[in-house]
Amino acid sequence: MSVDEEALKLHREHKGKLSIESKVPVENKDQLSLAYTPGVAAPCSKIEEDDRLADEYTARGNLVAVVTDGSAVLGLGDIGPKAAMPVMEGKAVLFKEFAGVDAFPLCLDTQETDEIIETVKRLAPTFGGINLEDIAAPACMEIEARLKEELDIPVFHDDQHGTAIVVLAGLINALRYVDKELEEAVVVVNGAGSAGIAIAKLLLSVGVKDVILADIFGILHPDQEEMNEIQSEMAEMTNQKNLTGDLTEAMKGADVFIGVSAPEIVTEDMVASMAEDPIVFAMANPVPEIRPKAARRAGAKVVGTGRSDYANQINNVLAFPGIFRGALDVRAADINEEMKIAAAYAIADLIFKEELKADYVIPDPFNKQVVPEVATAVAKAAVESGVARQEI
Amino acid sequence: MSVDEEALKLHREHKGKLSIESKVPVENKDQLSLAYTPGVAAPCSKIEEDDRLADEYTARGNLVAVVTDGSAVLGLGDIGPKAAMPVMEGKAVLFKEFAGVDAFPLCLDTQETDEIIETVKRLAPTFGGINLEDIAAPACMEIEARLKEELDIPVFHDDQHGTAIVVLAGLINALRYVDKELEEAVVVVNGAGSAGIAIAKLLLSVGVKDVILADIFGILHPDQEEMNEIQSEMAEMTNQKNLTGDLTEAMKGADVFIGVSAPEIVTEDMVASMAEDPIVFAMANPVPEIRPKAARRAGAKVVGTGRSDYANQINNVLAFPGIFRGALDVRAADINEEMKIAAAYAIADLIFKEELKADYVIPDPFNKQVVPEVATAVAKAAVESGVARQEI
Repeated sequence: MSVDEEALKLHREHKGKLSIESKVPVENKDQLSLAYTPGVAAPCSKIEEDDRLADEYTARGNLVAVVTDGSAVLGLGDIGPKAAMPVMEGKAVLFKEFAGVDAFPLCLDTQETDEIIETVKRLAPTFGGINLEDIAAPACMEIEARLKEELDIPVFHDDQHGTAIVVLAGLINALRYVDKELEEAVVVVNGAGSAGIAIAKLLLSVGVKDVILADIFGILHPDQEEMNEIQSEMAEMTNQKNLTGDLTEAMKGADVFIGVSAPEIVTEDMVASMAEDPIVFAMANPVPEIRPKAARRAGAKVVGTGRSDYANQINNVLAFPGIFRGALDVRAADINEEMKIAAAYAIADLIFKEELKADYVIPDPFNKQVVPEVATAVAKAAVESGVARQEI
Repeated sequence: MSVDEEALKLHREHKGKLSIESKVPVENKDQLSLAYTPGVAAPCSKIEEDDRLADEYTARGNLVAVVTDGSAVLGLGDIGPKAAMPVMEGKAVLFKEFAGVDAFPLCLDTQETDEIIETVKRLAPTFGGINLEDIAAPACMEIEARLKEELDIPVFHDDQHGTAIVVLAGLINALRYVDKELEEAVVVVNGAGSAGIAIAKLLLSVGVKDVILADIFGILHPDQEEMNEIQSEMAEMTNQKNLTGDLTEAMKGADVFIGVSAPEIVTEDMVASMAEDPIVFAMANPVPEIRPKAARRAGAKVVGTGRSDYANQINNVLAFPGIFRGALDVRAADINEEMKIAAAYAIADLIFKEELKADYVIPDPFNKQVVPEVATAVAKAAVESGVARQEI
């Protein structure tokens, strides 16, 4: 059976992947009177007096909404809320299995930015955190920014920041391996959509001085006229040497190529034009910007992709479960830059410098240490940056 | 320990009552590739082609949202969405434990009718049914009516119809016990809020000819000026003999008293003024309209209350789990009058006529036959009334 056939069989047999279970027994009148009326009135009243107690007496403190509008699902695109459900259930499964987080899929029947924001705000009393998923750019950026501002619980768009964090983790180790400094590296990010911009921003915030963003129209530059608003903002913060031209120009002499763009758009010549010991993270899915074999033939020292069948898979599952685990554990009000950076270093530091290899700069997602290490680092960063509402 | 103390301990120890669990394993790369990428794309694409397949490949077909705005929670009143969560979790626990329905609490941060309707509509792609809970009257009636009209999945306000169905079930058996006909019975319903009106409507729809509704201002009558819009409509459909006056007047010569009103407002004299072998369902909680002992002393033949420590408890848990089980099993587009009536008769018929006693007209909620019998009857009624989208 093919993967598709097996996946269909699995989903059909189980009727989806999630179930909602009771943590308490209700097999007789006494148990019923504690879980429901009249006993349930007691925790209600406690929370009415002090709503911080919601996290003590209800499931809220461990509950994350996985919210989508179905507009940009995997590589499938705008397939709508009902067809997005298998992905959102899958995400919720990963939250639970990797980090013990109770996550629930909410597939919304609207793709209007204001309506999505409004809906999530109305749902917030039920949840300890919000994971936005597979919402198309540029709406996803405004939705996340406004929800972060208006809600007092963590809001995280995984397609932006989960990817950025794991890319940063891989890059930290790849640079350690080739013995270059993060601050000095020239990094080209191709694909100036939500993921590419999040990657560029995170690199800037850890001190990478020369980030060059490119898109289909070429290098982002203040004089470039085809950019949208956010790309224009990014053009001001990146491209230190004021390069113009296309991706070929951008890659000449660069230390790192990060692709979140399109299949097979990078040639061996382009990789050969990079600086010594180049690093190539070609994450277009399922077909990368350049095949790992070709990249290595052209001189790439470390190659990563988004695929599990190649080495160095940039896999979000390394980040989001531990990030929410850590944020929820200290009742963080936000997932801020400090917490994201802490997560990236925690992932990178799982591999000792002497263990690093060209095909091992990123830990395996099934490494049981990943989630606890990330969670601890994120919780600590939350406390130190002042967004935690509870001790570790 | 008191019930309150035990309930607080239970809720605190478990941090609420619900958990979300995976039905599929994700312990290695192969399993991950079926539950998540790349395999998950196959069910997504199937549903995109035909969205009816959502019920086959996702949890949706067995998933009910328990939606509240926290405006009328138990006897506690308007305690808000966060404080309502223990009740909604409890409801979800009952859905699962009694009927295997996956139910998820959604406590909304709005009490505006239009906003609640809009929010539930946006959430509908995720759910196979909507259970509205603890929303204050009269908003709850408009919210339910409009959602029923605009959504193609079952929408059910349990505080209205769950109560009405169990009252009807109890009444069917109580009348069998005293050997009177439903059609001929004079029934007084005191408390013309959402539950009282739902009870009156359901009684009318099973053929009770003389229903008299009363509220704090007295008997509902077309000339009565203190009524709201819905009460005015009800005044046109009830009170066959055109009675005026207060509850004392209403009860004279009546066969049945149904109270969803206030503690201790019915006297022994009022019960004594009723017809021969009167039936009294005094459901104000926790203190009934008249204590069972007093009602019996005044001549009541059958007495029921809302409390588990008296005989004949009118308990919604007899209805809603089986009703949703039946509706979901045939993918019903609605929960209509036929299905409600079928549920009431299924509950009543669990007690054979020769088993009926004054203190046993309603089955025990832990009777394992209740849910399957109700579910089967409801599914059959859905098919026969044309709202089912799947065979039994």
